[in-house]
Amino acid sequence: MGTGQLSSLIMQGFSGPIYPIHPSEENVMGMRAYRSVRDVPEAPDLAVMVLPTGIVPRLLAECGEAGVPAAIVTSGGFREVGDAGLALERELVEVARRYDITMMGPNCIGVSNFNIGLNTTYYPYQQEPGGVTIISQSGTNSCHVYGHTHRIGMRLSHTVSVGNSAVVDMSDCIEYFAEEPTTRAIALYIEGVSDGAKFMAAARKATARKPVVALYVGGTGAGARAGLSHTAALGGDDAIYDGMLRQTGVLRACNIEDLLDWAWALATQPRAPGRRLCVYTNAGGPGASMADAASRAGLEVPVLSEGLQAELREYLPHTAATANPIDITFMLDMEAYYLRVPRLLFESGEVDGMVMYGIFGSWLFRTRKAALGDRFTLEIDSLTPRAFALLDELAGMPAEYGKPLLVSSFWGRDDEALAHLTDVGVPVYPIPERAVRSFAALT
Amino acid sequence: MGTGQLSSLIMQGFSGPIYPIHPSEENVMGMRAYRSVRDVPEAPDLAVMVLPTGIVPRLLAECGEAGVPAAIVTSGGFREVGDAGLALERELVEVARRYDITMMGPNCIGVSNFNIGLNTTYYPYQQEPGGVTIISQSGTNSCHVYGHTHRIGMRLSHTVSVGNSAVVDMSDCIEYFAEEPTTRAIALYIEGVSDGAKFMAAARKATARKPVVALYVGGTGAGARAGLSHTAALGGDDAIYDGMLRQTGVLRACNIEDLLDWAWALATQPRAPGRRLCVYTNAGGPGASMADAASRAGLEVPVLSEGLQAELREYLPHTAATANPIDITFMLDMEAYYLRVPRLLFESGEVDGMVMYGIFGSWLFRTRKAALGDRFTLEIDSLTPRAFALLDELAGMPAEYGKPLLVSSFWGRDDEALAHLTDVGVPVYPIPERAVRSFAALT
Repeated sequence: MGTGQLSSLIMQGFSGPIYPIHPSEENVMGMRAYRSVRDVPEAPDLAVMVLPTGIVPRLLAECGEAGVPAAIVTSGGFREVGDAGLALERELVEVARRYDITMMGPNCIGVSNFNIGLNTTYYPYQQEPGGVTIISQSGTNSCHVYGHTHRIGMRLSHTVSVGNSAVVDMSDCIEYFAEEPTTRAIALYIEGVSDGAKFMAAARKATARKPVVALYVGGTGAGARAGLSHTAALGGDDAIYDGMLRQTGVLRACNIEDLLDWAWALATQPRAPGRRLCVYTNAGGPGASMADAASRAGLEVPVLSEGLQAELREYLPHTAATANPIDITFMLDMEAYYLRVPRLLFESGEVDGMVMYGIFGSWLFRTRKAALGDRFTLEIDSLTPRAFALLDELAGMPAEYGKPLLVSSFWGRDDEALAHLTDVGVPVYPIPERAVRSFAALT
Repeated sequence: MGTGQLSSLIMQGFSGPIYPIHPSEENVMGMRAYRSVRDVPEAPDLAVMVLPTGIVPRLLAECGEAGVPAAIVTSGGFREVGDAGLALERELVEVARRYDITMMGPNCIGVSNFNIGLNTTYYPYQQEPGGVTIISQSGTNSCHVYGHTHRIGMRLSHTVSVGNSAVVDMSDCIEYFAEEPTTRAIALYIEGVSDGAKFMAAARKATARKPVVALYVGGTGAGARAGLSHTAALGGDDAIYDGMLRQTGVLRACNIEDLLDWAWALATQPRAPGRRLCVYTNAGGPGASMADAASRAGLEVPVLSEGLQAELREYLPHTAATANPIDITFMLDMEAYYLRVPRLLFESGEVDGMVMYGIFGSWLFRTRKAALGDRFTLEIDSLTPRAFALLDELAGMPAEYGKPLLVSSFWGRDDEALAHLTDVGVPVYPIPERAVRSFAALT
């Protein structure tokens, strides 16, 4: 575990000094190791402790003596294993209080801040920093999800695993990230809240400043049992949590996919001023399934005015549908597709935002070229730079008009146009209906 | 479009002769081109027609004269564009009937049969053949989804785009694939059914032999409008379709992700004999969210008997939870994790199947090694062959015990152990809750 966490710190490019501490090794992963925090030439800003349970309180006290102001205690075996562990956890808290140490955990994976290359989890985060902060009562759900976010191109600001929350709990984190400027949306994974009033105060403070989405899993019998054995969380009645979240303006998701999908939209796009959705596509099937999903999500897909449809038809082939969904069918004019038509729609006042299907770069052509060689004669090199410039302008429209744009494609980041679009801040969902449900979150 | 479809045929490795027909070119993609189907040295088994609308009936008649028994008409501009197109479509049907041609379309992408390397769509399918057949009223949803299936490792048998269904319609296809032996589950994308009695008869016939899942999008106002402009499909009241699907034993999905997720489970795993789910994990968060999702999906997560829990504890560390969810926390004994514990659970009679989180190969270690070089000293080369042998045995248990196993991991096919597991027939879902919802489909 310690090797993994240290690997992540190095791989993330953390620029500050790192002081490995080890009882016998002279050298840990190419760095000079120290016998004790007392031997380190300066007081570190943060101690990450991966140690046998019994010695954690004593070594945390050493950190306190050395002037370390903050600690992440990864070690488990405390409150979550019963009475003996509980006594040890109380001792640990007493030490943290005595030395005024801001302590995360115990029984937590750590804290990542991708703005400074700090990753104390055991998984690499292989992306640029972004606007979503995850605060999680599960370590796994705070760092295994890097695999998911990497695959879809969703970027994170911070991830926090609160573990047993002996000193710092989820509510403290919510309050902190309400003010933290790189965090544009907060995603919570909750197994149980021990101090409801504190949670509600923190959540209210946060939602007044930025959107918060929560997944609560402790409200069903099996979910509560799982949470209890996991982090000693006491889950409560699902309806009570539902009300608590609603009263504090926290959006509730029912699985991890929705939690992250919605947070991605909320961190990158403006809120939708209303529920009128434009479905804009080059393919009938995804257009129809997005329209159907919109109705099921309580959105409107309004029939556009005759005047607007006439304007749209000036840019579109005669086979196109213009009522909404707008299905352009087949058209080679990228400027009309990516810019003119979206601008007309954003400017019209008839819709509150847009979901789009059908953007692509040269992935398909490159794949064919690779397989077919000279038999494939289409000139593809000029496609990409031209598409990027158009997509940059398209990606700017949501801020310009105050209306969100979400994209979907079954083809992921293998296609450079879709990868580019996510990189400039427009979420691209791998399934059309997920873009629609995320749009609903923006309302 | 024609270039794309021909590219896919070549790239898929179709082994039969291909005869390009072109009015002026001597050579198409390295193959001799013919002026007319009449010049081809033998009667082809199938004609794929990508032509201007107006000349399709005449050229289909030429195919008929040449003895071609089947045709895919990709060209659009028929019934879906209104009265003029409708007249032309009637003419086309008349030609097909006159020459007894089995015609797909018009306005369809084509038919793929991956068992013989036949891919007449414009997207490459880059996988081995599998057990799911997709029958779709959307061309996009029949072939863009290859991007999705490739990413998760889900394998397809056939995909069929029925387009305007002028001769062969979805019900005919359902009847055919009810008997087709490589198809183990059928996924339907429906915008509207014109002959309800015919559909119900075909669906009943199919569900008596193999599972069928359907996504119907024409039941909401916006979905119906989209379907009408797309394939001239007349959608009907959602509740009527809901009843029709239920009465014929067709499972209904509400988005493309569920449609494909469920079909994948149904094509690869035995039905669950009951609703009692075992949640088996090495991570508390996914365990809790899977347990919660199970309750929401109407599944039970029964507390295991004291006797069984005692047996499990013989293999598990003292930190493990054994009640169900079973959270092994941290354990290096791969044989216990992948084989002994699953065997105890499958044999117990206390659960009807299992969802599992936490299988991994060497992706994480390889990534660290690549980034850290000699600083990372763990010996990893022996991990993978050993894991593969264990996973092969694990993958055989569902058939042995008649109870399904579904896996999830945020890490996809980048990890060779997860890729191997999907390749030997155990679905690995990228989100834990999706494995649980797919398990519910198996009940």
